[in-house]
Amino acid sequence: MKFEVTILGSSSATPIFNRNPTSQALNINEHLYLIDCAEGTQQQMLRFGIKSSRIEYIFISHLHGDHYLGLVGLLSSLHLNGRTKSITIFAPAPLKEIVNLQLKYSETVLQYQIDYVDTNPHTAEIILSNQDVIVESIPLDHRIDCTGFLFKQKKRNRKLIKEKLEELNIPAEYYTALKKGNDYTANDGTVYKNSTLTLDPEEPKSYAFCSDTIYTEKYFEQIKNVTLLYHEATFLHDMLERAKSTYHTTALQAATVACAVGAKELLLGHFSARYKTLNELLDEAKTVFPNTELAIEGKAFIIGD
Amino acid sequence: MKFEVTILGSSSATPIFNRNPTSQALNINEHLYLIDCAEGTQQQMLRFGIKSSRIEYIFISHLHGDHYLGLVGLLSSLHLNGRTKSITIFAPAPLKEIVNLQLKYSETVLQYQIDYVDTNPHTAEIILSNQDVIVESIPLDHRIDCTGFLFKQKKRNRKLIKEKLEELNIPAEYYTALKKGNDYTANDGTVYKNSTLTLDPEEPKSYAFCSDTIYTEKYFEQIKNVTLLYHEATFLHDMLERAKSTYHTTALQAATVACAVGAKELLLGHFSARYKTLNELLDEAKTVFPNTELAIEGKAFIIGD
Repeated sequence: MKFEVTILGSSSATPIFNRNPTSQALNINEHLYLIDCAEGTQQQMLRFGIKSSRIEYIFISHLHGDHYLGLVGLLSSLHLNGRTKSITIFAPAPLKEIVNLQLKYSETVLQYQIDYVDTNPHTAEIILSNQDVIVESIPLDHRIDCTGFLFKQKKRNRKLIKEKLEELNIPAEYYTALKKGNDYTANDGTVYKNSTLTLDPEEPKSYAFCSDTIYTEKYFEQIKNVTLLYHEATFLHDMLERAKSTYHTTALQAATVACAVGAKELLLGHFSARYKTLNELLDEAKTVFPNTELAIEGKAFIIGD
Repeated sequence: MKFEVTILGSSSATPIFNRNPTSQALNINEHLYLIDCAEGTQQQMLRFGIKSSRIEYIFISHLHGDHYLGLVGLLSSLHLNGRTKSITIFAPAPLKEIVNLQLKYSETVLQYQIDYVDTNPHTAEIILSNQDVIVESIPLDHRIDCTGFLFKQKKRNRKLIKEKLEELNIPAEYYTALKKGNDYTANDGTVYKNSTLTLDPEEPKSYAFCSDTIYTEKYFEQIKNVTLLYHEATFLHDMLERAKSTYHTTALQAATVACAVGAKELLLGHFSARYKTLNELLDEAKTVFPNTELAIEGKAFIIGD
């Protein structure tokens, strides 16, 4: 099952040439989940060949402009391009007021429905559960209400060892029970242990998107053992005081989070415009957590690869 | 006196890779006037080396997203970059409600003042007059309230012929009167005609920004003899019905406007995403008005050159 995130933007609030503010396209089993939607997201999707018409869900972490100002343009374009299928937006409650006001004054009546799901900035909640994933909001600690999002693949069924089943002439109607882990009892009373007929499914993988936040342990338990942790790393650690006062995290702190929660891999993003190159941020994080990468525009990361 | 417009965006509503929606940076005597501010304007300014900190005035033609969705991001960045000088925004009245709502939910209190001037979509009005230009709103006819903007250089003083004045020992205190066109009477009663002591100033030039509109003659008189006419040309003329139904203009019609008003030069823009290349639009306009150019991203046009 595909589980891959493409970075559309990696910069923090003030713009820098060739770095866009935050947006990511998450492909889960060929379904498209857009995470944050900064100004320029549409152009970035065009640049990287990701069709916006395929977006099914949009997740907005918070209402600072560098995380959502591309949304109304995107919604308008979907409308102009003939979308009729509804879209679900998970976001802080006031977002719908902002969107509706702009649609009102542009006299736009969308041809498709938007289903808004308000996020709760205080408590982790399951906000979506479908055939592929469970998505939880992650309460963060930023200057304004802000949540991250945890995407957890659903536990898959056991994998049938087809040759074995055929060899034993096990009827197909038992396959569902076998996938669920049941043993098989043949007509002659012989019991075949499930473990001899099936293989373990792939371990469910997970992706945590930790948007803007000061360093805090409040979500550590929730994202324990996450496969890929995206964490903001706005500053180098020599800017710790600035990070604190603006409710952001340093690269060193992001790596500390990755260590503490037992993440398999760390992805740094939300870089301050003061950093023209990003190697120092990467190097700093790697001193604490070696399996770290930079969220570079256009780069795709297979989660659990 | 510098009078130059740089194109920051040329596309219409739906995005196309490498064409941004409408925005233009107008440099008048080294003062920066931003006209429309579509999504991505900040990035375009960075790309073309135009400092957003230098913007003094912002003109928003109407509240379709492809003309203003970059504004809140720009205003926020100016704030984050330490701007304290006030800025004046000429725009449809509801814009301030939209801006204020977004600033409210991002808990941003700008460090600088925004002076809003509401545009009148029904009547041409002088909306700004400073040492360099007079700016008039141009009522257009679009699906929602929409104005263009006419920038007219102020008539300059006559130019002194310095050598002549020195030769005749005319005291400096008379220079102001000479610049204004007065004759000079010497102590011995000799009258020197102003035309022998001064030269004609440069003819004032003008720039008309005709944003989204259906073809209409209602603003022809106002922009008569304009030096450079920017006019939207969303479609080729074979799409006339579509142009009419969406309240847009074809390239042929834009050229007809240029002819009818006696413009010196025509600049086409606001191209539909259906046109991957723009030569056909240019060629069509040139059949009617040869001195036509395309508003291409990054290109600068000296007005009256």
